[in-house]
Amino acid sequence: MEINHILLLQFLMGLFSLVGFGKSDPNPLHDYCVANVKGPRNFFSNLVPCINPDETSVSHFATSALSEPGDMNQFNFNVTLTNINNLPGLNTLGLAMARADIAVNGLVPPHSHPRASEVSILLEGSLLVGFVDTSNRLYTQRLRSGDCFVFPKGLIHFLYNTDLVNPAVTISGLSSQNPGAQISSLATFTSKPPIPDEILIKAFKVNGQDVTRIRRNFGG
Amino acid sequence: MEINHILLLQFLMGLFSLVGFGKSDPNPLHDYCVANVKGPRNFFSNLVPCINPDETSVSHFATSALSEPGDMNQFNFNVTLTNINNLPGLNTLGLAMARADIAVNGLVPPHSHPRASEVSILLEGSLLVGFVDTSNRLYTQRLRSGDCFVFPKGLIHFLYNTDLVNPAVTISGLSSQNPGAQISSLATFTSKPPIPDEILIKAFKVNGQDVTRIRRNFGG
Amino acid sequence: MEINHILLLQFLMGLFSLVGFGKSDPNPLHDYCVANVKGPRNFFSNLVPCINPDETSVSHFATSALSEPGDMNQFNFNVTLTNINNLPGLNTLGLAMARADIAVNGLVPPHSHPRASEVSILLEGSLLVGFVDTSNRLYTQRLRSGDCFVFPKGLIHFLYNTDLVNPAVTISGLSSQNPGAQISSLATFTSKPPIPDEILIKAFKVNGQDVTRIRRNFGG
Amino acid sequence: MEINHILLLQFLMGLFSLVGFGKSDPNPLHDYCVANVKGPRNFFSNLVPCINPDETSVSHFATSALSEPGDMNQFNFNVTLTNINNLPGLNTLGLAMARADIAVNGLVPPHSHPRASEVSILLEGSLLVGFVDTSNRLYTQRLRSGDCFVFPKGLIHFLYNTDLVNPAVTISGLSSQNPGAQISSLATFTSKPPIPDEILIKAFKVNGQDVTRIRRNFGG
Amino acid sequence: MEINHILLLQFLMGLFSLVGFGKSDPNPLHDYCVANVKGPRNFFSNLVPCINPDETSVSHFATSALSEPGDMNQFNFNVTLTNINNLPGLNTLGLAMARADIAVNGLVPPHSHPRASEVSILLEGSLLVGFVDTSNRLYTQRLRSGDCFVFPKGLIHFLYNTDLVNPAVTISGLSSQNPGAQISSLATFTSKPPIPDEILIKAFKVNGQDVTRIRRNFGG
Amino acid sequence: MEINHILLLQFLMGLFSLVGFGKSDPNPLHDYCVANVKGPRNFFSNLVPCINPDETSVSHFATSALSEPGDMNQFNFNVTLTNINNLPGLNTLGLAMARADIAVNGLVPPHSHPRASEVSILLEGSLLVGFVDTSNRLYTQRLRSGDCFVFPKGLIHFLYNTDLVNPAVTISGLSSQNPGAQISSLATFTSKPPIPDEILIKAFKVNGQDVTRIRRNFGG
Repeated sequence: MEINHILLLQFLMGLFSLVGFGKSDPNPLHDYCVANVKGPRNFFSNLVPCINPDETSVSHFATSALSEPGDMNQFNFNVTLTNINNLPGLNTLGLAMARADIAVNGLVPPHSHPRASEVSILLEGSLLVGFVDTSNRLYTQRLRSGDCFVFPKGLIHFLYNTDLVNPAVTISGLSSQNPGAQISSLATFTSKPPIPDEILIKAFKVNGQDVTRIRRNFGG
Repeated sequence: MEINHILLLQFLMGLFSLVGFGKSDPNPLHDYCVANVKGPRNFFSNLVPCINPDETSVSHFATSALSEPGDMNQFNFNVTLTNINNLPGLNTLGLAMARADIAVNGLVPPHSHPRASEVSILLEGSLLVGFVDTSNRLYTQRLRSGDCFVFPKGLIHFLYNTDLVNPAVTISGLSSQNPGAQISSLATFTSKPPIPDEILIKAFKVNGQDVTRIRRNFGG
Repeated sequence: MEINHILLLQFLMGLFSLVGFGKSDPNPLHDYCVANVKGPRNFFSNLVPCINPDETSVSHFATSALSEPGDMNQFNFNVTLTNINNLPGLNTLGLAMARADIAVNGLVPPHSHPRASEVSILLEGSLLVGFVDTSNRLYTQRLRSGDCFVFPKGLIHFLYNTDLVNPAVTISGLSSQNPGAQISSLATFTSKPPIPDEILIKAFKVNGQDVTRIRRNFGG
Repeated sequence: MEINHILLLQFLMGLFSLVGFGKSDPNPLHDYCVANVKGPRNFFSNLVPCINPDETSVSHFATSALSEPGDMNQFNFNVTLTNINNLPGLNTLGLAMARADIAVNGLVPPHSHPRASEVSILLEGSLLVGFVDTSNRLYTQRLRSGDCFVFPKGLIHFLYNTDLVNPAVTISGLSSQNPGAQISSLATFTSKPPIPDEILIKAFKVNGQDVTRIRRNFGG
Repeated sequence: MEINHILLLQFLMGLFSLVGFGKSDPNPLHDYCVANVKGPRNFFSNLVPCINPDETSVSHFATSALSEPGDMNQFNFNVTLTNINNLPGLNTLGLAMARADIAVNGLVPPHSHPRASEVSILLEGSLLVGFVDTSNRLYTQRLRSGDCFVFPKGLIHFLYNTDLVNPAVTISGLSSQNPGAQISSLATFTSKPPIPDEILIKAFKVNGQDVTRIRRNFGG
Repeated sequence: MEINHILLLQFLMGLFSLVGFGKSDPNPLHDYCVANVKGPRNFFSNLVPCINPDETSVSHFATSALSEPGDMNQFNFNVTLTNINNLPGLNTLGLAMARADIAVNGLVPPHSHPRASEVSILLEGSLLVGFVDTSNRLYTQRLRSGDCFVFPKGLIHFLYNTDLVNPAVTISGLSSQNPGAQISSLATFTSKPPIPDEILIKAFKVNGQDVTRIRRNFGG
């Protein structure tokens, strides 16, 4: 029996263990590839190496990172995202989860995720959300607690807490483990080094003093 | 100015509107493709056709489907998933969101999603969760409110409410718009038509009476 | 011999002709799928249907659409892109080609392509180009005739003709047959319907009069 | 109990049934999408439409098409491939299976599959096989019964039966449901219409009489 | 002439050799990437590193691993799969081949492959095969020698030798180089550590003694 | 303000910086992954490692490699392609750009790209171009300056300068960062080691002297 069991495990292991992981598979290539974020980071790649599978533990698949809101920023919101540091077991699985806390009057300003679509559920509070498509049409909606909303990949979108009393809390699923985010106003007016003034003057149809003032308002 | 504006919109539209949607793109091929779920369903395909883009409205991107728990089943849980009926704007975006309500003593039995990885956050209650990898190792963890957990693609996993008092509520992101689900015990013992008894006897090392009894317990 | 030839063609055809086109292939699923842009457009989909393969002709794979510049817009540039109307043979191949003409002082304002990376070659003139990454760093370069530049997927980038005399001409390859484009200033200030003023006031740290003036400058 | 069972099935069905099939999923988007090859073929697409899922039967997933060799062609081989006609259940699954019979002295001439890698097992006989990589290096090997060999995607390869007595039989897996095949000598010398002689003269460093003779040998 | 030849090779090499291998390509990114399975395994990744391309030899693309059946396990079957050890040239090509030998009365018990669809051909013997879809419908068929059958990705399926005299032999193509396998009965009843009894009691509607007995029957 | 700014950057960085890069994402997994082509090349992989992101500079995204034609080869053409050496910022973006210079009477002989579709624009001169599909049909067209043409993935195609006076110049976009190229006549007649004569004799229906002569004409 024991021998049978070993042979059987060899069957299973033969289908897993040290077996190769094909690049052209449209899938992760093993059950998991827990991100190796310790040790010297002298190897850079489009993918994060895994730890030795023998050293995998359940803690790599669990996190409390989203259990509390972080500190608010200048726009009065905070986003916490799963990543390879706080949830290394998500590495290679093509998915992330985020928690956004948006204070009264807080705004997640118009921004886009270059590598992900997003679906959000509002857990608490109320929000005005919207996205602009590439024909410049705005889709906007007022969400109540329990509502979900879709933000298609790469399109500019925003979440605005218009409630006078209550903060808003959302949970989002995103279709990349590293969606990225680019806030339109910051990317244009506060990049380092700055985009030349004349470009912003032409792009936004403002004047040079406007550009200077906007930059100054952002602390630049 | 108006003419300029029109030319500019043509530029944008030229990059969108009726432009072709390449199959080998590893992306959705337009901003969105709101699922067409009305009218005669006489066309079946690997993808759901879209409505005429001119008829798209913001309601296609919003849903309240996850705002309330549904009725409990025989295992004392309920899962509500976004789909092309309750959230047609998610069509083609490769993502879904689910809400699970698990009553006291309720169990989402060992099951797998053939087309998705899943990351879940526990909003209320406490849960014992786990998944089994292809080398037959179980990763299991007790979750408290605010904890996240990862279920890699295609692997058998479960969520069990061991709390004596409180129901549990989770929100999940899944990496497919149609993840599918297959509960191991139901797929083996309650398929229609049934899998021949002798196969189950050999597979589970039970006897024929066991098979009959298990089937009967499932109402078969 | 003739029979042999027919059998051989059956071999080839057996590997092509009416053979199925698998959805999970990471490739186009036949040699080509010439976009069907004529006839009633009452079927909408994430992909454009093909014409009957028997009706394919070489003209579907050739176009003169990029041979001449189009009319300049308010920013003094013009972009012509291959699409399923002017080059239906590109349908499903995951690729597009664009020609940009940028007049003296003309600017392709900061914009992003939600579905494509882009590599451009400057054929004539000189340009200041740049992109901003998600850590808000600007990469900017002055291009001379013959230089190529890379714009990674989904990131805000611009092309500015600083030459006092000569227009600039670029040819680009893009990694989607429908890359889409979203100009940051237009998407935020000129969407229809407009994004509420208070959101733009907070996002750009301007005041309400600024928003009104910017909208007016865009003809709104 | 019955009610519970129904609710449970709703859970499963909610995760499957009419649910949407997202285009950006790197997977098939439902369990299967049996190819619809009957009825009028007036709809052409990069993917073959499915039959109504209610009409699916087990016969769609089984075939005897590879059980017998077909007739030999001018090169003394025969290839039978699964396709949407003989195995419609493979539609959308990104995979095909082929059987090759190669007579004594038969040759599957140098050819490439534009959309698939291939792995072959020799069931009977002996073969000389090989492929040429893009640096023009030939990898060649003599196979005995039971040996497997890999032909990477898109590269020119051949299978030659050098046995004096026995035909050879191989089974192959291919990484596309419609791999396509292009025999180098036929595509260059026997296309319809023909490639102009001067191009073949330059490409193969032959003279015009050679081209005429080769074409004639192929029956042209 | 020699010089011309070198220049030409540079053209070819320019299109291959040290050229970069883009991550967003839906393809392998070079002709091959022979798995490096020797030397210290201190680097773990979602993909197996390649050997130095200069050290590639034809033996990396050939194997005799499937030429003989292995030892039978407790279920009286044996599966041998190509992997990066026995066929390192398949690395990155998204494909595997397997041989299954199923003794008289042998059963490949209900199991699923989390990362692959499978198409099998029965070479010898006769089999009862089947899969269960996510709506719990069983598709089952009796196969004779030469028949092929499809097992869609991630779905539970089985192969059962009902022949009284002859063993069965199948060859399968699978759409991943590392498909993985999870036998439903083993993953639920024999994982290490075990899934808590109360979960199995609820999931399979058995009692605690049943669980103990089943575990014991598996040698636990 | 500064603190707010830092918190905000943490938000952005949280969505980028050291965050993991999921393998199953159908996208690059960070903004860019500049190819590391310096230092010891003792690590081989399906993807080229990146440099330390901190060491990225704008020069990695710009190149003058396509600004001048290279030396002509025996077929009187020259192709220069972007690659990880001359344009390391394209690494992982799934795209390449090529410049072809074709002298009077020059021919880019029938060849295929195993990993890319191609769209070309003729900048100067005139060309006869064509491709052969897998049913052996030739699509051929005479191009004038400004015309674009499509070469679908993996299919044999050619470009021939029939102009008596002027060289031709094209720019191409290709849908892989490493498309590869295989010239049909060279791969069959000049591989190293050579394909056995009898295979070429059968494949091209020539005799042994022809093979010897053709090989000699290629300098072999």
